[in-house]
Amino acid sequence: MTLPLGYRYAAAWAGIRKVEKDDLALIVSDTPAAAAAVFTQNRVQAAPVRLSRQHLRESGGRARALLVNAGNANCATRTGDRVALQCCRAAARQLNAPVSQILPASTGVIGVEMDAGKIVAALPHLVAALSDSAFDQVARAIMTTDTVSKTVHAAIRTRQGLVRLAGMAKGAGMIHPLMATTLAFVVTDALVSPAALRPLLKRAAENTFNRLSVDGDTSTNDTLVLLANGASGVHVAAADLEKTLEAALGDLARQIARDGEGASKLITIDVAGASSDRAAARLARAIANSPLVKTAIAGADPNWGRLICAAGNSGVAFDPANVDIEMQGVRVCRGGLAADFSEEELTGKLRQPECSIRFTIRGKDRGKARFWTCDLTEGYIRINASYRT
Amino acid sequence: MTLPLGYRYAAAWAGIRKVEKDDLALIVSDTPAAAAAVFTQNRVQAAPVRLSRQHLRESGGRARALLVNAGNANCATRTGDRVALQCCRAAARQLNAPVSQILPASTGVIGVEMDAGKIVAALPHLVAALSDSAFDQVARAIMTTDTVSKTVHAAIRTRQGLVRLAGMAKGAGMIHPLMATTLAFVVTDALVSPAALRPLLKRAAENTFNRLSVDGDTSTNDTLVLLANGASGVHVAAADLEKTLEAALGDLARQIARDGEGASKLITIDVAGASSDRAAARLARAIANSPLVKTAIAGADPNWGRLICAAGNSGVAFDPANVDIEMQGVRVCRGGLAADFSEEELTGKLRQPECSIRFTIRGKDRGKARFWTCDLTEGYIRINASYRT
Repeated sequence: MTLPLGYRYAAAWAGIRKVEKDDLALIVSDTPAAAAAVFTQNRVQAAPVRLSRQHLRESGGRARALLVNAGNANCATRTGDRVALQCCRAAARQLNAPVSQILPASTGVIGVEMDAGKIVAALPHLVAALSDSAFDQVARAIMTTDTVSKTVHAAIRTRQGLVRLAGMAKGAGMIHPLMATTLAFVVTDALVSPAALRPLLKRAAENTFNRLSVDGDTSTNDTLVLLANGASGVHVAAADLEKTLEAALGDLARQIARDGEGASKLITIDVAGASSDRAAARLARAIANSPLVKTAIAGADPNWGRLICAAGNSGVAFDPANVDIEMQGVRVCRGGLAADFSEEELTGKLRQPECSIRFTIRGKDRGKARFWTCDLTEGYIRINASYRT
Repeated sequence: MTLPLGYRYAAAWAGIRKVEKDDLALIVSDTPAAAAAVFTQNRVQAAPVRLSRQHLRESGGRARALLVNAGNANCATRTGDRVALQCCRAAARQLNAPVSQILPASTGVIGVEMDAGKIVAALPHLVAALSDSAFDQVARAIMTTDTVSKTVHAAIRTRQGLVRLAGMAKGAGMIHPLMATTLAFVVTDALVSPAALRPLLKRAAENTFNRLSVDGDTSTNDTLVLLANGASGVHVAAADLEKTLEAALGDLARQIARDGEGASKLITIDVAGASSDRAAARLARAIANSPLVKTAIAGADPNWGRLICAAGNSGVAFDPANVDIEMQGVRVCRGGLAADFSEEELTGKLRQPECSIRFTIRGKDRGKARFWTCDLTEGYIRINASYRT
């Protein structure tokens, strides 16, 4: 797949991580792109989140570049705001752009002062290295405890010509759906106005990144940015762009769940028959966040009692006697009671790297939701009991 | 400590557990005792929970006996209601009591039919074995994944004489505060009316069992019963009984947290300076339920960034710049920023079996709450990825 036109990328090791591994990245649009973003709803917000918000307001939704670092969240530090601004200013100078058109994003440890000097010093080299082929290198540079990089590519064919879209995300831990989750950047060469971009991104995130959980913790740095620079010269119907974007974000969301910290399985939860889509999402989220459900799946145990118990804790009203549950397509619970199934056979099916759970409430209601999560294994504990050391 | 007067206890193996270990227990008051209970708020409620509620209504808050089994939750099964009633009827016959004065409680796996025959068959032997000294044996019989039994003893000295109180609880997993948590039974020989008992129990549970979390899952079987049979002949002021009861329940709650599945540490979280006690409890709960906080404590890592991040996800409004955090009495965060402390020294202190966290919001507000939880270790995963096998 060809990348969207008019973007260049670069990544380098600026010394923010202790290990020598790229930790600073630039995504640059040749011209100011229409830009929209959704951010963490955590009450504690990192300096780059606050500054990106401010820059989007000041620029009227236009951006030339995303400046991203891993290894330090630039959150809850004395110098955070100053550091974020200083880095953006240096990038703006190098790129001959207004500072308000630089959107910063950070990921990493909270509460440790970040050294702006390292980033400022690395920027000239980074800008010099910009190329239209370093997309994957940037996707790797933003990883923290991710084991694989996450990218997605799509195209929309119109009568006017082709529009391309490419996205990347980092995931792994502190993943819980509240507006945006983790860092994710999507670039497209479609011609769209900033005003059209934001509602479209919000809706697409709602059914994808907001339907994703690894461990129920929403980070202080969650940022999802969409850039549309119009370099293709092709206008796309907003509905078509939204559809493609939602598919791309869904793909990234699944990659994040599959690579959740310590995860051995991607779990897809479908809830149907709730009183509303919102109620269905609450039920799905309660199931997705239950450590007892997640450990049962890790152990390939078709323990549907934990599923119905978790749903019962969602705060959503339902009659257990109307509940049917399927795991891997096998009916395990019928009308709230154990169905007749081969536990041995299902245990075998649960050893596969993907697990599907279908929770249906019988009746006339049609509310439904799909949600992604991963299992909970000893690997999660190993990673998180020693993240900083 | 002497046990409350007028109660007898028995436990036996009825064959509900696969392993030969007591799984059926009776707590009998010689005379009908004033009885009050709080139950799980899970939408899915086990048959014994529903029947105990009904019996308390029918009896006007009087009970002769608690009939408890471990190894099967009698929840989400075809025959659950019939089984629970059948067992209570058999106990009522053996004890010459109205069936409405028998309160059943069950704990164990969900969704597996329970064999009433085994319990009915074991009852004559159990009743014959009733003795005033088998309290500890009953506390052991109700254990599931608990590693130690949990009991508490207290006395109230009045001018009229002595009143005794004794309690037991099972804990370990599916522990999350909603009304009551897990199974817990408290008996006292105080003279109290059923009408006075219930509000007093609700309030005492609110600050103890409802401030406790192991893994954020509320079970389908949570039951906390208080019996007061008046055998001491001594009237106690309701306020005095409540104070003693709250201390006893707090003691049991701490024992449960300390013995949470896989736990290596008891964590006590104090929040102060919130806009209300309710807001403080929400903040404390968010910190207690964060897997990233719990794994950091497991790893003796003074990672306060995860604490403030978890608080930021509570839904409670606060300004991070007003937050001070202490761990083990050491200030780690001052005004939302890293405080100056020796990480090495604090890491050493975090290796102790108890961990205290103090989260304070500066200002004029006085809302506070105390909350108990445990750390999250690989042991939790090991236990729960193979609970049924």
